[in-house]
Amino acid sequence: MSFPVDVVVMAAGKGTRMKSRRPKVLHRLGGRALAQHVIDTAVRLSARQVVVITGHEAAQVEAGLAAPGGAGTALGFVRQEPQLGTGHAVQQAVPVLADDGVTLVLSGDVPLTQADTLQALLALCGGQCLALLTLDQPDPTGYGRIVRGTDGAVQAIVEQKDASEAQKAITEIYSGIMAVPTRLLRGWLARLDNRNAQNEYYLTDVVKFAVADGVPVQAHRITDAAQVAGVNSPKQLAELERAYQGRRAHELLEQGVRLADPARFDVRGELQCGPDVEIDVGCVFEGRVVLGEGVRIGAHCVIANATLAAGAVIHPFTHIDGEKAGVSVGPGALIGPFARLRPGAQLGAEVHIGNFVEVKNSTLADGAKANHLAYLGDATVGERVNYGAGSITANYDGANKHRTVIEADVHVGSNCVLVAPVTLGAGGTVGGGSTITKDTPAGALSVARGKQVSIPNWQRPRKNPPKA
Amino acid sequence: MSFPVDVVVMAAGKGTRMKSRRPKVLHRLGGRALAQHVIDTAVRLSARQVVVITGHEAAQVEAGLAAPGGAGTALGFVRQEPQLGTGHAVQQAVPVLADDGVTLVLSGDVPLTQADTLQALLALCGGQCLALLTLDQPDPTGYGRIVRGTDGAVQAIVEQKDASEAQKAITEIYSGIMAVPTRLLRGWLARLDNRNAQNEYYLTDVVKFAVADGVPVQAHRITDAAQVAGVNSPKQLAELERAYQGRRAHELLEQGVRLADPARFDVRGELQCGPDVEIDVGCVFEGRVVLGEGVRIGAHCVIANATLAAGAVIHPFTHIDGEKAGVSVGPGALIGPFARLRPGAQLGAEVHIGNFVEVKNSTLADGAKANHLAYLGDATVGERVNYGAGSITANYDGANKHRTVIEADVHVGSNCVLVAPVTLGAGGTVGGGSTITKDTPAGALSVARGKQVSIPNWQRPRKNPPKA
Amino acid sequence: MSFPVDVVVMAAGKGTRMKSRRPKVLHRLGGRALAQHVIDTAVRLSARQVVVITGHEAAQVEAGLAAPGGAGTALGFVRQEPQLGTGHAVQQAVPVLADDGVTLVLSGDVPLTQADTLQALLALCGGQCLALLTLDQPDPTGYGRIVRGTDGAVQAIVEQKDASEAQKAITEIYSGIMAVPTRLLRGWLARLDNRNAQNEYYLTDVVKFAVADGVPVQAHRITDAAQVAGVNSPKQLAELERAYQGRRAHELLEQGVRLADPARFDVRGELQCGPDVEIDVGCVFEGRVVLGEGVRIGAHCVIANATLAAGAVIHPFTHIDGEKAGVSVGPGALIGPFARLRPGAQLGAEVHIGNFVEVKNSTLADGAKANHLAYLGDATVGERVNYGAGSITANYDGANKHRTVIEADVHVGSNCVLVAPVTLGAGGTVGGGSTITKDTPAGALSVARGKQVSIPNWQRPRKNPPKA
Repeated sequence: MSFPVDVVVMAAGKGTRMKSRRPKVLHRLGGRALAQHVIDTAVRLSARQVVVITGHEAAQVEAGLAAPGGAGTALGFVRQEPQLGTGHAVQQAVPVLADDGVTLVLSGDVPLTQADTLQALLALCGGQCLALLTLDQPDPTGYGRIVRGTDGAVQAIVEQKDASEAQKAITEIYSGIMAVPTRLLRGWLARLDNRNAQNEYYLTDVVKFAVADGVPVQAHRITDAAQVAGVNSPKQLAELERAYQGRRAHELLEQGVRLADPARFDVRGELQCGPDVEIDVGCVFEGRVVLGEGVRIGAHCVIANATLAAGAVIHPFTHIDGEKAGVSVGPGALIGPFARLRPGAQLGAEVHIGNFVEVKNSTLADGAKANHLAYLGDATVGERVNYGAGSITANYDGANKHRTVIEADVHVGSNCVLVAPVTLGAGGTVGGGSTITKDTPAGALSVARGKQVSIPNWQRPRKNPPKA
Repeated sequence: MSFPVDVVVMAAGKGTRMKSRRPKVLHRLGGRALAQHVIDTAVRLSARQVVVITGHEAAQVEAGLAAPGGAGTALGFVRQEPQLGTGHAVQQAVPVLADDGVTLVLSGDVPLTQADTLQALLALCGGQCLALLTLDQPDPTGYGRIVRGTDGAVQAIVEQKDASEAQKAITEIYSGIMAVPTRLLRGWLARLDNRNAQNEYYLTDVVKFAVADGVPVQAHRITDAAQVAGVNSPKQLAELERAYQGRRAHELLEQGVRLADPARFDVRGELQCGPDVEIDVGCVFEGRVVLGEGVRIGAHCVIANATLAAGAVIHPFTHIDGEKAGVSVGPGALIGPFARLRPGAQLGAEVHIGNFVEVKNSTLADGAKANHLAYLGDATVGERVNYGAGSITANYDGANKHRTVIEADVHVGSNCVLVAPVTLGAGGTVGGGSTITKDTPAGALSVARGKQVSIPNWQRPRKNPPKA
Repeated sequence: MSFPVDVVVMAAGKGTRMKSRRPKVLHRLGGRALAQHVIDTAVRLSARQVVVITGHEAAQVEAGLAAPGGAGTALGFVRQEPQLGTGHAVQQAVPVLADDGVTLVLSGDVPLTQADTLQALLALCGGQCLALLTLDQPDPTGYGRIVRGTDGAVQAIVEQKDASEAQKAITEIYSGIMAVPTRLLRGWLARLDNRNAQNEYYLTDVVKFAVADGVPVQAHRITDAAQVAGVNSPKQLAELERAYQGRRAHELLEQGVRLADPARFDVRGELQCGPDVEIDVGCVFEGRVVLGEGVRIGAHCVIANATLAAGAVIHPFTHIDGEKAGVSVGPGALIGPFARLRPGAQLGAEVHIGNFVEVKNSTLADGAKANHLAYLGDATVGERVNYGAGSITANYDGANKHRTVIEADVHVGSNCVLVAPVTLGAGGTVGGGSTITKDTPAGALSVARGKQVSIPNWQRPRKNPPKA
């Protein structure tokens, strides 16, 4: 744009119909607060600043929103107290808006407006005109209609209750989104009054001032209702969530990702996929997830904050969440089913993590395997280690966490306990059922178990008679 | 209502198209038999009695249905053998119906009629008229049409095959549901004959008797087809199941529950939710489940017969089923992923149950934790106990179950076996890999393990050559 | 058919829009390659041979397709290099087609054409006519229109760009599928030229030759767009996958299978069901699966290559994959939740496999139980054996796999390790926490564990101060 854009986000409302203690604009869609979607879109427009107008639970709303790191867009908040209408809301923001810019008014509960739609709206404004985003709505009942003259120019927004029969038949409605040169907006806002049924200051009254002042009013008319749909209830939130997820799925399909069922796929964050990625039904992705070429994700996996290298295969019912520390899975690794990778799991190439195995804050070098019912926590595992079924790193002594080091080519038997801190020397073997409390020599067989004895003709316990 | 209501439920049919050994009316929708939905609706109407007319597999049907406990509605059964039509069916019930009431005729395979719809029908009957429930059906082919006079009064129900061209154009059809003063019904049923193509006694013939007798025939006309839809095939059962689940989801959204996807949500029983409950995709609820304020349920959980206190967080892939004994989860508890809570699991505040952990018939006091691969059965676990990865309560000696008591602040190491009956004294520690067969003193470190030895330069087994 | 049918499958294209390294016709739908669906349909038609025309990645395509074993249909490949149009493609096949037959031209990326539709097309051809499969398409833009004379006879296929306004209004379009007597086809193909905008040889030009030669051109006109829909993008693949799964679900419902949600059900292979099978939401079936009478499958199960006998109950989150060795589950067995059955698991009647239990290449006789956190690999388990929680067969010594034999009525305690090869004698008991390395006598109690000692007043580790 040839002019600076300042975005005003309306976020003061209570959202009673959400029936929630959480302020409406902090409700999450695709894992992000509704108003955060709006802020992120503003950042994508390279807005100079975003001014969020808060009111209801203002402190909580302000704490719950952020400008993405590294963005050139400043984020600020102004409070509207009391709340006397949409025009009054924007009046609160005007002092922090500079006259050289265009003000783009967005709603904090309208999360799915696309940046290119707003670009088109701003282009229409051009720093000179009032530009309204409008929608063709087959059933316009209840919405403000866009009245145009015979030349097609917008003349007014007429509310439902004020509309004539002819106007009621108009299917072009106002979306609540406008772009307006700030120097004009400032003057128009000063002229607002609240002489109406609700005793509120309506932002839409600027249309009539524009017409009166001879400022052209343009409309960017779209047909995609989801882009201007607001969230007022859990039902609408669920509907927009599905619309959002459908869009995400569509984008990934366009990139070549193969989804077994786009309707059973959820992304709540950033999902970056290489070529020939396949994702089965019922998967959920959260945070930042990167899937390398040819990665296959089985049915019903939940994957968050992880990077999976090319050719990794994730079997069904796998739960990965790297949280802040992240999880990385090496090329050709096989994970699951029923595996859980926790923060700090770093798996090398061709690592196998099988069923009922949990890995946390541990590094597994190439070719290491833990195939069955096991726990690896705070461990450093060397190449080609085979970690037996049922074996556990006892990393926590009740007060502190300690590290287990398993050097390359160690074979840990079944149901062992490795009491950290402990190091198993390279190439060694630990006999099944051993509790290892001291370091083991390289190349040695280490065991710690009782002697096997049998008591013949043992009389088993008998079933107690039922109590009288 | 100012008159007693007696409900007659038609449940004698075979339901051949279900292709099942189970009688049709016992097929389950939302976890309840089809006919049980109808009975439960009758109870909601405060019906005086419900008379179910059985025939095909009568004993099984009668055994499979019940009046909800504490309801003031009597449940009875009469048998129709042989089955000679709908009128004949109701004739079997007439001896147990008293003349002071209104008979409401319902179908055991039409589960989704709402109580308020039937209330409206009964009000229209008013103890004086014949009242029919009718449906506007855009494609009425095959259904009985409601013929009205110029005054709008119902004159007849005309079957498809008897309909004139003008009548075939009528889109108002009879639903199979009527309300009729019993004293009138009794007389009309006595006048039925079976001189028709099917040689059956048709209940719908009462309409013509009413008209002949000058009894007003009223119609309560609805547009919601699901309310009068019958189940005749597995396909229709699946369709109505989805309609039912959609309604349940809608009700919960209206209450403020947040569902990530209302189309991937199943309730088969009673789900009671506090404020700000969030339920992720793919969850199934069965039996009676209560979720306190702010409870969050992760993706793909199955939860039955459980009470979860405020702030409990259930991670994905958690399976809870309290069956008869119930499960209770304390405030702020963290459960899962991949956890299983079985009958009698009673978890205090802030309890953590982690991955691959099973809890059955055990009490865990506040702050107790079992985070990894463990089994707690028939155990009493004190406050702040840390129960190590891989540890097992050996509660079953092959004949009887015994109790394990772990007193407060005990730290059980990894891969321990606690052979019940056994008590671990407060504040004690059990070393990893120990099999505990005797009570342990409070405050002590108890261990039972072999001495660790290493055999240097151990020659590992070598891969056998393939067999010749 | 009274004439032999030879099928030509067009499979030379690149499929750029798939954005995949995999050739388009090898992309999978319902678990089978797109072109394999077409071949399998040809086999169902008892075609004499199927000739697949390959080009892009020909060797990979040829390796990826097969004729079903035992089918009387020969499968062959011819290569089209370079690719000069659809007519040129079929020209490559002509040398291997005999004049006594009818050539049925199919597309390798059109997987859902039904055999009975093609039967009707072949019948229309009758060995004498050119028969085209056509579709009524409400929006025909972009497709070749079927132009008919006043007598209704097909006169031409007119491409979009060549169509008059009147022709553009035609909604009957050509599907790309035709049946043509081979002796006629041979001559017509020889007359093709590439004097058109694309410089390609168009197969559709045979229509004009037929008209010119007085050969009747027939059209079999259908309305089911999915049958002739091609796959050109991941989006279209996902859409057809859903269409395919919807059909599979519908077929099973028709057979009496009860699906909790037909929209959340995936079959990728053959699923054979006895009466009264119930399948809950989110289940995926792969390979060949047989479910006996009354089998119930819980929510979110993944089941492949397995046979489940009558009355088996599979609880939620169960993963079964028999791969080549298969899995068999006996009558009345209870499996799961969170169970995993791997290749070679053979379970007898009333066997119980509980949560977090893995079974691989093991036979469990009637009534054996492994209810909690356990691994059974390469084991032979006798009748009524109770295999304790946390117990493991250590079947792998790092080089070879060995067998564990547990004879009838053995009771294995918790957290045991059975170091194979080893045999536990009938009726014996193994004490919890034992590592068994030698055979145990029948009827004996065998234990191998350390002596329990307690160190009083043990000072627990203290939390380290945070590092400076």
